[in-house]
Amino acid sequence: MPADRGSVRCLGIDPGIGRLGFGLVLQTGTSLNAVEYGCLETRPGEDLPKRLLVLFSSLGEIVDRLAPDIFAVERLFFGRNTTTAEAVWQARGVVLLLAAQRGLDLYQPKPAEVKMAVAGTGSATKTQVQRMVCEILRLGALPKPDDAADALAIAMTGLAMHAAESRIRALEGRTPC
Amino acid sequence: MPADRGSVRCLGIDPGIGRLGFGLVLQTGTSLNAVEYGCLETRPGEDLPKRLLVLFSSLGEIVDRLAPDIFAVERLFFGRNTTTAEAVWQARGVVLLLAAQRGLDLYQPKPAEVKMAVAGTGSATKTQVQRMVCEILRLGALPKPDDAADALAIAMTGLAMHAAESRIRALEGRTPC
Repeated sequence: MPADRGSVRCLGIDPGIGRLGFGLVLQTGTSLNAVEYGCLETRPGEDLPKRLLVLFSSLGEIVDRLAPDIFAVERLFFGRNTTTAEAVWQARGVVLLLAAQRGLDLYQPKPAEVKMAVAGTGSATKTQVQRMVCEILRLGALPKPDDAADALAIAMTGLAMHAAESRIRALEGRTPC
Repeated sequence: MPADRGSVRCLGIDPGIGRLGFGLVLQTGTSLNAVEYGCLETRPGEDLPKRLLVLFSSLGEIVDRLAPDIFAVERLFFGRNTTTAEAVWQARGVVLLLAAQRGLDLYQPKPAEVKMAVAGTGSATKTQVQRMVCEILRLGALPKPDDAADALAIAMTGLAMHAAESRIRALEGRTPC
């Protein structure tokens, strides 16, 4: 739970094994700002355990530097079990471990929830979501690579889920209207 | 790579989220001995990140205490994507991370390879494999729970794969017969 309730820093993660997008969005009141975003890459020729270690170590450094209050990691959906799906699930496990180690509140939006939160509809296209990210965060250009743009969208969704959760908690303490 | 080539300690892992089996088998020459085995459990009601952290921390302590030379983690096969399958894949990612952090050689046998290595056929039943584990390691009774028995079988398979790899490497340095 963030110390300063007027400002929340959310680190969004688009989980992957070859490319893992990250983006930190700072919410101050109703204003949203992108603090930093990018993409971690691991080499396909490398062993899976080493690639997981690279992601875990690099992401750990990013968390230390950016000091998020909350974490948002997208849920994954794969049509069938493939070697890639298995590797991505294992990478996601390492990301969740990091969140637990740092004691950060974790939000796990589904892809449709990210589209809904950022573009106002669960059926928005990938391009529509990215353009909305660019617009809302007042970025000069579409963030590249796509994984970084997606991570910013996921961070914004995490902030929306966190705000809604706080409102619901506050309401629960009151007499129903 | 183990320091003493005459003796190898392999930690076998049967990955899971609710129950994770582990077993350390020591090979000295052709003799195999079970040093320790058991099962880590996490509570189904707990958040996934916390459960991953419990597994990672507990398994880290076991690795520190048992000082394995090599790691063997079974490959997973799921017929379809389920919430359980996803959680188990994420737990497996955390186990592979630990192996990479400790710099341990990792073997990843398939279930059929474990059956082959321990019971001599890839189509052995679960009970046959467990009875062979009990027989080969000269245990007084079948190890309980099943996850621990499976982990011992996986450790024995890791040792067999490691020995085969060492033999192949040695042969590659020689003129073919």
